[in-house]
Amino acid sequence: MAKEKKLVEAITPMDEDFAKWYTDVVKNAELIEYSGIKGCMILRPNGYAIWENIQKELDRRFKETGVENVYMPMFIPESLLQREKEHVEGFAPEVAWVTHGGNEELTERLCVRPTSETLFCDLYSNIVQSYRDLPKVYNQWCSVVRWEKTTRPFLRTAEFLWQEGHTAHATAEEAEERTIQMLNVYADFCEEVLAIPLLKGRKTDKEKFAGAKATYTIEAMMHDGKALQSGTSHNFGDGFAQAFGIQYTDKDNSLKYVHQTSWGMSTRIIGAIIMVHGDDSGLVLPPRIAPTQAVVIPIAAHKEGVLDEARKLKYVIEAAGIRVKLDDSDKSPGWKFSEQEIVGIPARIEIGPKDIEAGQCVIVRRDNREKTVVAIADAAAELQRVLDEEQKDMFERAKKHLYDNLFEAKDYETFKDTIANKPGFVKAMWCGELECELKIKEDTTATSRCMPFEQEQISDVCVCCGKPAKKMVYWGKAY
Amino acid sequence: MAKEKKLVEAITPMDEDFAKWYTDVVKNAELIEYSGIKGCMILRPNGYAIWENIQKELDRRFKETGVENVYMPMFIPESLLQREKEHVEGFAPEVAWVTHGGNEELTERLCVRPTSETLFCDLYSNIVQSYRDLPKVYNQWCSVVRWEKTTRPFLRTAEFLWQEGHTAHATAEEAEERTIQMLNVYADFCEEVLAIPLLKGRKTDKEKFAGAKATYTIEAMMHDGKALQSGTSHNFGDGFAQAFGIQYTDKDNSLKYVHQTSWGMSTRIIGAIIMVHGDDSGLVLPPRIAPTQAVVIPIAAHKEGVLDEARKLKYVIEAAGIRVKLDDSDKSPGWKFSEQEIVGIPARIEIGPKDIEAGQCVIVRRDNREKTVVAIADAAAELQRVLDEEQKDMFERAKKHLYDNLFEAKDYETFKDTIANKPGFVKAMWCGELECELKIKEDTTATSRCMPFEQEQISDVCVCCGKPAKKMVYWGKAY
Repeated sequence: MAKEKKLVEAITPMDEDFAKWYTDVVKNAELIEYSGIKGCMILRPNGYAIWENIQKELDRRFKETGVENVYMPMFIPESLLQREKEHVEGFAPEVAWVTHGGNEELTERLCVRPTSETLFCDLYSNIVQSYRDLPKVYNQWCSVVRWEKTTRPFLRTAEFLWQEGHTAHATAEEAEERTIQMLNVYADFCEEVLAIPLLKGRKTDKEKFAGAKATYTIEAMMHDGKALQSGTSHNFGDGFAQAFGIQYTDKDNSLKYVHQTSWGMSTRIIGAIIMVHGDDSGLVLPPRIAPTQAVVIPIAAHKEGVLDEARKLKYVIEAAGIRVKLDDSDKSPGWKFSEQEIVGIPARIEIGPKDIEAGQCVIVRRDNREKTVVAIADAAAELQRVLDEEQKDMFERAKKHLYDNLFEAKDYETFKDTIANKPGFVKAMWCGELECELKIKEDTTATSRCMPFEQEQISDVCVCCGKPAKKMVYWGKAY
Repeated sequence: MAKEKKLVEAITPMDEDFAKWYTDVVKNAELIEYSGIKGCMILRPNGYAIWENIQKELDRRFKETGVENVYMPMFIPESLLQREKEHVEGFAPEVAWVTHGGNEELTERLCVRPTSETLFCDLYSNIVQSYRDLPKVYNQWCSVVRWEKTTRPFLRTAEFLWQEGHTAHATAEEAEERTIQMLNVYADFCEEVLAIPLLKGRKTDKEKFAGAKATYTIEAMMHDGKALQSGTSHNFGDGFAQAFGIQYTDKDNSLKYVHQTSWGMSTRIIGAIIMVHGDDSGLVLPPRIAPTQAVVIPIAAHKEGVLDEARKLKYVIEAAGIRVKLDDSDKSPGWKFSEQEIVGIPARIEIGPKDIEAGQCVIVRRDNREKTVVAIADAAAELQRVLDEEQKDMFERAKKHLYDNLFEAKDYETFKDTIANKPGFVKAMWCGELECELKIKEDTTATSRCMPFEQEQISDVCVCCGKPAKKMVYWGKAY
């Protein structure tokens, strides 16, 4: 019973210490284990299975838009990384360097990829010759390394898993179209599958990707009101193409530079799932992404017929295409309920001797603990209905949280006061100058999250300096 | 037309120069591209799609046996790698070392994983306490690095993709059972999906994995008679458990060491697919693994109705669950046929004005170019039948090649003569001594491939030294 007690007590309440709550959930749900290497985490089966589902769903959506997967080397020669000036300045300070192979010192240092723009550019410069070779719409699933000083599971780690898409196009228009298309793929995926509502927009120059002409982003709001950048899509114009000499012969026989994009989503998004949906009992997984969507828990399993009936129920539900498990271990039902809640399985089905006698079972939702008594014969269909409702309610709840905490400020005092006292984002006008972004960060620790596609004219002047405003910006503290 | 000519001439005939044929096929089928880093290759869409199908099929088979996927860090601290003596001796000479993170020198060197036994052991020592925590049957899909001096696409590269399974069990019996079970998963997969027949057996001590108690292997025979080790499964006993202190409390409250296994299959297997099935026109992919199983090629596509009919045909075939493409580009049909043959698409469907008039189309198999005229209405069903037959015939052909080139030798002169003059393997008896293995390698360059599970008593004495024989061994030159 000692361990049972520990399970329940182990999670710090969110309102007491959100950061502590987060690491407690990550550890107790057995999503990760710390490794012996600072900042590198082990993705345990519960954590990796979420990533597998994300991969499966995103990969299908990518391929529907014509994406082809490839695999690039994990090493980048130092000279190649240095080919594009802004890019190397952005990444060099945080890369890991391989200096020796076997017992020999290498003639040129290799960095472990922090991102693979340079490798894809090198490839495209070799395989793109004619307009017939375009577009190239490649993607890879891999791990990347960024030598971070302070790390937190999923949110910031020295090594993380992601996908990175890299495309080359004949025209600037096509590249811009692909950049926005992939941002929308991410946004739809997050909203439909992860039940995470988003704000979409463009990053300011200060916040954009090293070497990009424009970076677009989807920003999610966590339970504590902070932002998590959940996916980005970059338009490089022909900057990289010029640095790497990626040219093609067009139909009119003229030599032109290609236009490029890149876009990525990483295991960071699992941090968003946790911080948008979790509660004081643990993880709450949206049904559409949950590795296990429901668990059948027999009550008084030792009584005749109970286990048999529970087993039958599991098979019927499985046959209906729902990812279901049966917990027939010798733990107590209460213990099993706690486990289901900690790991965030969206529904449990309780079935005991009295239920069987009445020809029924009880479905309990994870998110709001709502119980539904259903006939055993209807269990699979009813469960599917409950899961669909739960998915929808989770999204609506998160959306309400986002819009309830989206404040507005017309003057700097209101702005600072809102950032300081209200968890959430602030909409405010901006003059477009880096100076104001830096001052706002200095005064409030908030950064510009994005310039939303749907602009509103809140006022005519910059909230910070009072000069004429150019853009409405969402500001917030961020992970 | 210049390019068209190049396509046809680019592949060196197998019998002229098998090694050159191999690299020509790999390059012309656009499976890989060389990268700027020596020994690191780029897997292009045609190559990576094969690996994706291998992953999908193997992963499903793994999970049916209870395997759970995880992700471990790509770095191993030097001290951790050194924990098991034999293991470090086997791998240290060929690892890449990270010495700097960002601008700082690391206090301890990290190697890029050549394999992850040490990381899994470290994890298991933390998460295994009781018999209730066993077995642990984990696997990961990742890339590993071994700093090879001479490299060849797929067969030997500095970085390659693989899966590595690592398990921990309460008893020695269970570990041995799992070792053999996974070997059989590999063997069944190779035979059923890749149409590659295998010899199964145990490695000699000289050839076994660094740190293993026993290594089991599946060995395939390439077209040139050389062996390719296609998958291995290792039983570690409790050696690693002792080195890493992985103990559990058993039901009787006594403290025991776990028993471990590991098993892996890599992108090397793609080399086997190429060298078992390929021909002078290029790649020949078994239908069950081919990313594209059939391509519809319109003849005289400019004539009215042809493209429409070709498109309809493609949709009907797709709806039947066959992975099909339509080649409606403006290239000539002959050019399209060549491309289909180079990349190894198992079947093409030709459809032209005369076919349409007659309500028929022509299915052409890739492996033997056999043509079947079928009614358009039956095309999908007939194509499936043709693909099934092709898969079966490819396996039978490869099996005949294997057994036709499996020779026997009772004395050393016959042995040496056979290895020198006949491409294939030689069955011969062995005394069990390392000395004879070394002498055979020195005299013939052949190595022991495996001690097959099904032993035959060819003679009573070792083929090399004449002392009493202990085992029958398959010997051969190997990739």
